[in-house]
Amino acid sequence: MKVCRRETFNAAHRLYDARWSDEKNFEVFGKCSNPNFHGHNYVLETWVDGPIDADTGYVIDLKMLKHLIRDEISERFDHRNLNLDCPEFKDLKPSAENIAYVIWHLLRPKLDAKYQLSVRLWETENNIVEYAGI
Amino acid sequence: MKVCRRETFNAAHRLYDARWSDEKNFEVFGKCSNPNFHGHNYVLETWVDGPIDADTGYVIDLKMLKHLIRDEISERFDHRNLNLDCPEFKDLKPSAENIAYVIWHLLRPKLDAKYQLSVRLWETENNIVEYAGI
Amino acid sequence: MKVCRRETFNAAHRLYDARWSDEKNFEVFGKCSNPNFHGHNYVLETWVDGPIDADTGYVIDLKMLKHLIRDEISERFDHRNLNLDCPEFKDLKPSAENIAYVIWHLLRPKLDAKYQLSVRLWETENNIVEYAGI
Amino acid sequence: MKVCRRETFNAAHRLYDARWSDEKNFEVFGKCSNPNFHGHNYVLETWVDGPIDADTGYVIDLKMLKHLIRDEISERFDHRNLNLDCPEFKDLKPSAENIAYVIWHLLRPKLDAKYQLSVRLWETENNIVEYAGI
Amino acid sequence: MKVCRRETFNAAHRLYDARWSDEKNFEVFGKCSNPNFHGHNYVLETWVDGPIDADTGYVIDLKMLKHLIRDEISERFDHRNLNLDCPEFKDLKPSAENIAYVIWHLLRPKLDAKYQLSVRLWETENNIVEYAGI
Amino acid sequence: MKVCRRETFNAAHRLYDARWSDEKNFEVFGKCSNPNFHGHNYVLETWVDGPIDADTGYVIDLKMLKHLIRDEISERFDHRNLNLDCPEFKDLKPSAENIAYVIWHLLRPKLDAKYQLSVRLWETENNIVEYAGI
Repeated sequence: MKVCRRETFNAAHRLYDARWSDEKNFEVFGKCSNPNFHGHNYVLETWVDGPIDADTGYVIDLKMLKHLIRDEISERFDHRNLNLDCPEFKDLKPSAENIAYVIWHLLRPKLDAKYQLSVRLWETENNIVEYAGI
Repeated sequence: MKVCRRETFNAAHRLYDARWSDEKNFEVFGKCSNPNFHGHNYVLETWVDGPIDADTGYVIDLKMLKHLIRDEISERFDHRNLNLDCPEFKDLKPSAENIAYVIWHLLRPKLDAKYQLSVRLWETENNIVEYAGI
Repeated sequence: MKVCRRETFNAAHRLYDARWSDEKNFEVFGKCSNPNFHGHNYVLETWVDGPIDADTGYVIDLKMLKHLIRDEISERFDHRNLNLDCPEFKDLKPSAENIAYVIWHLLRPKLDAKYQLSVRLWETENNIVEYAGI
Repeated sequence: MKVCRRETFNAAHRLYDARWSDEKNFEVFGKCSNPNFHGHNYVLETWVDGPIDADTGYVIDLKMLKHLIRDEISERFDHRNLNLDCPEFKDLKPSAENIAYVIWHLLRPKLDAKYQLSVRLWETENNIVEYAGI
Repeated sequence: MKVCRRETFNAAHRLYDARWSDEKNFEVFGKCSNPNFHGHNYVLETWVDGPIDADTGYVIDLKMLKHLIRDEISERFDHRNLNLDCPEFKDLKPSAENIAYVIWHLLRPKLDAKYQLSVRLWETENNIVEYAGI
Repeated sequence: MKVCRRETFNAAHRLYDARWSDEKNFEVFGKCSNPNFHGHNYVLETWVDGPIDADTGYVIDLKMLKHLIRDEISERFDHRNLNLDCPEFKDLKPSAENIAYVIWHLLRPKLDAKYQLSVRLWETENNIVEYAGI
């Protein structure tokens, strides 16, 4: 049985590589490399897979999962500049893929080993990524 | 090839355990344990996985699947109180997980063995569960 | 300039008239008169119309509006049985129209007279009401 | 890591079998067999599964995937009559299942072998299909 | 108080003018003039404005409004070719604007004079029209 | 008859007032005043009200309106930092209200005087503004 909590956060970011010229960055990342950043309303689905607890009828208490996501993810990334404010992206480009990767690795150690975890992240209504661990 | 029919139903429910005190129920289930019930617009996706029929181009006739869902699920749960009106939840808490579990077991015997079945249920726009059998 | 905050709440309700027979209630309200209640995920849009404040760029601080809606509306109706728990519906049927009417009259006195107010309420994804005062 | 690009296209179609009588066609396909066609806003999610490129942070450049979908799918099917204008459906009924099958086989050879591909297609907001290859 | 019922229907159509050359039609209507039609999932919101009935708590019974829309609109247009099957569009181009105009004039005489009526029609998720009468 | 085109753009912004202390800015704008910016997927509905043209069946060619929005709005604001890159917000805080105000004044002179114009802007799925001119 899988259960999911959906949360949102808003952040600024920019995709560029300091080793490359501005031209190369624009060629690879297009408008996403604009030097003064742009931003998104990120939508995050956190899916937890595990057995139903017979006493509660829950796989996991979604209120607890909601608080976990707020403490670990929203507090960290909401209303932030991912490139400038977040050490997680100091040496990692804040592409949707890498954000999902980082979120998964932030949440995984906080969840009991009996659960499987996957995350789905909307960067825009047309661009989506999903990560379920290795 | 997987195909899905989406349907909705509205129901009242309450999460509580008769063996526990009101305090314990509130501690575990929060506002979901309020004695006079609350309710939801449940959204149900029913996914059927199987081969395409060469004659019809269908995995399964979605009109037939729609009628099956209405007969087996909506007739049973729509505009009902899951705790009081539905024998399926006499000894089972009507959590989203258990509702999905019950729906899967109601639909499974009605479908040809050649199909795999999974169900996804939205309790709110932020709380989702998914069940694909054992 | 109009601004809107969208919030949700979940509640149980029932439409029936104690002066009428069960048959008459079923004839008028159909499944909505089921004696043990059913429920909905209500979606509420609260629209406030007024001038932009030159200092803040805001018509009204949406964070303040969000807290107002939570204090006055969600606290009152979320995870409640509108018929049994809410004195507002003691002598008033909790139809979507009447819920919108009550919400408007709860919010109106809390807002400065310079603002106009309207509320839009989704009972289901297909049933919507809107009220802007007399 | 999976990434997805969402695109839409609008097309007319009809489900019928030339070997069958009108009565048989109506019995099997209902209103979908109406002789003068009807139509849909198809929503297509194209999911690509592969490793993250360390230089770009991308599994695949979603701008490139968007252009691929537009060149291979939208150019071919958007504002078309699938039965009359599209040779892909000369001998294949344009059911949602078969459209997804055709789309998958059009995109597969255009993608590097290191990627896995699946497509999800909405025919209406309630009818969805998904295909991930054999 | 305004109330709304949302319904959907699927239809094929084509925009062209028989008095014009193919070139002129393509210049004015682009891909919408393709000779073999294309189609849409139309989403229709029907808004009725009137007083709340004290006995029922309703402006209008939304079940009755739903049946009215199904009888007058869906029966007429769903799974149809608007150009070929529908006399309403014999001498009127089936643009979203004209479809909304026709729908309004079909529903208006069926509603009590005490109500005001407006209709909102989505042709795609990005193209919307609204008509409230003269 | 009103018609609408929906478009989206992504931008970074920050709300703060250079005349105020950081404390005052945080008190008024909360996290929206974070110095390194955050961002949003803005959704813009552009509504044009006017008569139906008898020849085309259009109030305005939505393809033309789409290109106008792209040229005047998306080119200007998409993937930009509203505070740093956009002279429109040099002396005006980029609140949702002010962005809608600026968009309305950019589009108004490009539209024939026979049309009325209003714009609706989603900053998040829960925060919406609407502006119809003075």
